Amino acid sequence: MIKVGIVGGTGYTGVELLRLLATHPEVKLTAITSRKEDGLPVADMFPSLRGRVDLAFSAPEKAKLTECDVVFFATPHGVAMAQAPELLAAGVKVIDLAADFRLQDIASFEKWYKIPHSCPELLKEAAYGLVELNRDAIRKARIVGNPGCYPTTMQLGLAPLLQAGVIDASHLIADCKSGVSGAGRKAEVATLFSEAGDNFKAYGVSGHRHSPETLERLRFLTKDKVGLLFTPHLVPMIRGMHSTLYARLTKDIDNAALQALFEKAYGNEPFIDVMPFGSHPETRSTRASNMLRIALHRPDDGDTVVVLVVQDNLVKGASGQAVQCMNLMFGLDETTGLMHIPVLP
Amino acid sequence: MIKVGIVGGTGYTGVELLRLLATHPEVKLTAITSRKEDGLPVADMFPSLRGRVDLAFSAPEKAKLTECDVVFFATPHGVAMAQAPELLAAGVKVIDLAADFRLQDIASFEKWYKIPHSCPELLKEAAYGLVELNRDAIRKARIVGNPGCYPTTMQLGLAPLLQAGVIDASHLIADCKSGVSGAGRKAEVATLFSEAGDNFKAYGVSGHRHSPETLERLRFLTKDKVGLLFTPHLVPMIRGMHSTLYARLTKDIDNAALQALFEKAYGNEPFIDVMPFGSHPETRSTRASNMLRIALHRPDDGDTVVVLVVQDNLVKGASGQAVQCMNLMFGLDETTGLMHIPVLP
Amino acid sequence: MIKVGIVGGTGYTGVELLRLLATHPEVKLTAITSRKEDGLPVADMFPSLRGRVDLAFSAPEKAKLTECDVVFFATPHGVAMAQAPELLAAGVKVIDLAADFRLQDIASFEKWYKIPHSCPELLKEAAYGLVELNRDAIRKARIVGNPGCYPTTMQLGLAPLLQAGVIDASHLIADCKSGVSGAGRKAEVATLFSEAGDNFKAYGVSGHRHSPETLERLRFLTKDKVGLLFTPHLVPMIRGMHSTLYARLTKDIDNAALQALFEKAYGNEPFIDVMPFGSHPETRSTRASNMLRIALHRPDDGDTVVVLVVQDNLVKGASGQAVQCMNLMFGLDETTGLMHIPVLP
Amino acid sequence: MIKVGIVGGTGYTGVELLRLLATHPEVKLTAITSRKEDGLPVADMFPSLRGRVDLAFSAPEKAKLTECDVVFFATPHGVAMAQAPELLAAGVKVIDLAADFRLQDIASFEKWYKIPHSCPELLKEAAYGLVELNRDAIRKARIVGNPGCYPTTMQLGLAPLLQAGVIDASHLIADCKSGVSGAGRKAEVATLFSEAGDNFKAYGVSGHRHSPETLERLRFLTKDKVGLLFTPHLVPMIRGMHSTLYARLTKDIDNAALQALFEKAYGNEPFIDVMPFGSHPETRSTRASNMLRIALHRPDDGDTVVVLVVQDNLVKGASGQAVQCMNLMFGLDETTGLMHIPVLP
Repeated sequence: MIKVGIVGGTGYTGVELLRLLATHPEVKLTAITSRKEDGLPVADMFPSLRGRVDLAFSAPEKAKLTECDVVFFATPHGVAMAQAPELLAAGVKVIDLAADFRLQDIASFEKWYKIPHSCPELLKEAAYGLVELNRDAIRKARIVGNPGCYPTTMQLGLAPLLQAGVIDASHLIADCKSGVSGAGRKAEVATLFSEAGDNFKAYGVSGHRHSPETLERLRFLTKDKVGLLFTPHLVPMIRGMHSTLYARLTKDIDNAALQALFEKAYGNEPFIDVMPFGSHPETRSTRASNMLRIALHRPDDGDTVVVLVVQDNLVKGASGQAVQCMNLMFGLDETTGLMHIPVLP
Repeated sequence: MIKVGIVGGTGYTGVELLRLLATHPEVKLTAITSRKEDGLPVADMFPSLRGRVDLAFSAPEKAKLTECDVVFFATPHGVAMAQAPELLAAGVKVIDLAADFRLQDIASFEKWYKIPHSCPELLKEAAYGLVELNRDAIRKARIVGNPGCYPTTMQLGLAPLLQAGVIDASHLIADCKSGVSGAGRKAEVATLFSEAGDNFKAYGVSGHRHSPETLERLRFLTKDKVGLLFTPHLVPMIRGMHSTLYARLTKDIDNAALQALFEKAYGNEPFIDVMPFGSHPETRSTRASNMLRIALHRPDDGDTVVVLVVQDNLVKGASGQAVQCMNLMFGLDETTGLMHIPVLP
Repeated sequence: MIKVGIVGGTGYTGVELLRLLATHPEVKLTAITSRKEDGLPVADMFPSLRGRVDLAFSAPEKAKLTECDVVFFATPHGVAMAQAPELLAAGVKVIDLAADFRLQDIASFEKWYKIPHSCPELLKEAAYGLVELNRDAIRKARIVGNPGCYPTTMQLGLAPLLQAGVIDASHLIADCKSGVSGAGRKAEVATLFSEAGDNFKAYGVSGHRHSPETLERLRFLTKDKVGLLFTPHLVPMIRGMHSTLYARLTKDIDNAALQALFEKAYGNEPFIDVMPFGSHPETRSTRASNMLRIALHRPDDGDTVVVLVVQDNLVKGASGQAVQCMNLMFGLDETTGLMHIPVLP
Repeated sequence: MIKVGIVGGTGYTGVELLRLLATHPEVKLTAITSRKEDGLPVADMFPSLRGRVDLAFSAPEKAKLTECDVVFFATPHGVAMAQAPELLAAGVKVIDLAADFRLQDIASFEKWYKIPHSCPELLKEAAYGLVELNRDAIRKARIVGNPGCYPTTMQLGLAPLLQAGVIDASHLIADCKSGVSGAGRKAEVATLFSEAGDNFKAYGVSGHRHSPETLERLRFLTKDKVGLLFTPHLVPMIRGMHSTLYARLTKDIDNAALQALFEKAYGNEPFIDVMPFGSHPETRSTRASNMLRIALHRPDDGDTVVVLVVQDNLVKGASGQAVQCMNLMFGLDETTGLMHIPVLP
């Protein structure tokens, strides 16, 4: 059994890790930390876990994380890089759900996250945890930077097109929409029910942290110059992410060939569903599961391909993907503990 | 492996049965019928099942239901009783999620459902599928009438009090609130998003079919005269049911003793969680799971006990309970395939 | 023109006052205070007011409230009683939307609000602002304590029955449901979209501040002993309140006579709509308007009458009622500026 | 007083017309037709109108529409063109909220709406009812084709850029999001609360009727070749529309100059709010009002301008715009009866 620790389990990615790991057949939940909630049974904060998780939160210094096999960081940016060196030294693997190990470009990290990076050498060895595009590196990694939710959809939706060299990579547009849980479980006015409900808005249009992350990774996929215009929006739903991606075709390619690019790329992937050409995936078709669905469109048979991508932002966009990485890092079947069928309605 | 057929799989209880049964380790989904959708792959209607359920709907006459071990009816009232005799004759067990086998009082059935009952003799042998109150009968039954969603909460919330004889059974009040999925997947104006959303209302206050069902069952629990005022309300959420039950105490009993009644009754139940006295259970703490949670209150230490009961109306209130019955009928551990942790947030 | 000041305009009752007063034909919005937002144009915080309200927030000491004719307090409890004496001395009328002037019983106030009452003598002269039950006193008042949202529905729903002496006043039950805006515009985890959405729960079952307020007022309506069991619930909608009231009949009275009690009591009220016996009012039928609707039921023609009451908690339950009081206090037609038609859908 | 008739008042644009017209100071609601609901008081279907609209629905042949001054058609496509000739002959003006008089290109109309156009000659004289771009024609018109909701946002968001000739008109992208009320008040599975709630999806990506309408009108604004990729999405909210428009700049123009284009175009418009550069308008800031808000962005100071446009799809996107047209057609101040402040929260 893999002994698992979680640092910072009071947020949505934390409780989602708990949901997934508590029924994972190869995992023993060993420690979960929260300085503020030291001593509180986890199930008192999240009654959904009553009878299923009997751990209590413990202060970090009491948590014996070094006795774990792997530690997940479901924390704000900056926490994982502070604690990772000690854990790695003790032979513990690290999976960070925040941004500390996502961006190889340290200047970019420091610009967008406003903190210095404390362990650049670890960053170099860290694997970017987007399994379908980086499986081998993850398998061998001691430390994984789990991707952002938006970047997951953008990369998986654009990769086959970029790799095939059939689109103008310099003017990609990603019009993305996220459920409110993506903003986390922080007390903030903007995400109150009465503010975010029955409402729709864009945010961060002039710049968002997921833009540099996505750009850096897209650049690994093509030699072409990559430019990305990323527009996030907030949808009055709890879970779910829908990215509408626009790319101008530069090659003469018919719809069947476009579709074939995706089916070839993802045909064997257990967590990517390439739907029939012209489908309209719904976010709820992935709710509470690790599935990501993709569908292609080509309006008026014109020169622009539209890629629709949906996922549950807390699962494939965060905690599920992290568990998928863990499975790889420990030599398990990648799907272990992750075969939940989406909850619909 | 238990060969399972589903009659009428295009509604919410149908798709929920599919979600639960597709990962049930002892079940082989064998047939699912819909005259209207004959030939359509189930996953085309419910993309959440893509890659997980490869059955197609078939017209009833093609479906070879008699080769199944058990058939679930997720149909409108009246269908199960028409088809049950032939299935039972072929040795197939029957679990009806509609009302055909819920009410032993045929006159009451016919009054509330406006159709004659076609097989009163089968009704007599049918077991009422509320496991925690009727486990032995279900275990031996060939045919089960799965309880209504509201009645499940009302019975489980009131049973320990009635059995202990500590309340005035003649003036029970059940103020119940249901998510919109309880109304089914029928095209109707009243349950459109723009009608039911951002709105709250009572309905059926002057009479609702779940009242006679609940009354009949409550009367099995006590010799006292039973009277029930049941007020259903519609909540702008998809899944979830919250029943607020009011009963006047007739005995001098302190809060600890009240709590003990529930803990004794349900302490070993895998799907009932008696929360600490004074808790406020949330519907989401049961979302997409078979758990039902109960908490007791006694405002101002007065003479009225308030019982709060929550469940997912589509799981413990419908399809999950039906699978729980199936497990019993086939000698399996009652929890097989039903240990989903609730989805929160 | 009535010069109006608002203290504490950054919450939901504040912005609702602004919406109502900005189009009130007899009002000139003169000052709105917020220490924290001093200098910020109101429309920068609430873009719905762009082009319609050109005031900026100002710190209290700059606001020249004493030059107003009336000041509304849309503040936490305790603020109005601190500032009221100075304003009244300057001839300014005061309407408090918090609890400082609601409860005549000071001990009860101090028990529930945990602060000492700083001006008991003013409390004595304050009028309770439930217009339909206290019109004359409000008309003459210098200071009004605007009712709580729940108490408004409970009192208006029970008053005709209590005044007629046809119910058992000692065992009233009020099962009430409120939209999330009732919790205010404070940054709190419990009212985040991802916490309160797609969820339903009771809260404060063992005791809520609106209970003593309602009890005190109900006792003015009858000589009988009054007992009230009040159970508030949180509904995943923004605006709206639905109270389901249960009262046991003690007199032999038929349904027509019951209905007549309400029609007689409220037949001339511009903001109370007594619907036909057996109706199911929806909260949205009052959305963004000052209307409150009532309907009566008598299930199974039994001995319990069920009263359904709906209102918009921010209008008739708060800011609209406050403006209705202001109209009376300044000799205007009570409906001035308040004739918005509910927004449906 | 203008005598107003409404044909087809049982849908959302119908009830919204009633809300707006019932308080319009120059209007007398005279007739409202529905064959199916003949005789039913309007307020029985829409209790929000109780006490405010005392009309009953009447069958079309009884409705004496020819005695009205103006008739609104809130009907499915095809109804207005069948009845308009008779009304116009009787001197009655016509405003159609459906598509019969929107598209001047009859072939396009017939392709997208699948019905022949029965009065091409009337179509020629019809004015397209987008006030801000067509005010003079509307003022003189006997017949107005009220714009679609999406086209309103796309045209108003792109017009200043097209007219100034600063963008590549051939590759416009409009990623648009609509609340569910845009789908109307028809009983359909896809818009049930349990289907559309907590969910997000694109629809009609490969072709939508609002595309040809928008294209035809955009072409009047520029001599350049116009190409538009329009992607509609369904948002789980009742009212509200958010369009995110992408246009590639072809001229060297700075942000201040871009902003100036919009401020100059719309500075005097009562119902268009050009927000500060870089703002993120929220749909709720227009809820239940006739306001439309626009904000410009230029991510990374690149060559693409992003225009964000929000409106209430039922008001500026439908019924409010229709009343705005009526005001013009009858020589009233354009804002008469339309100055509702948006409802927030």
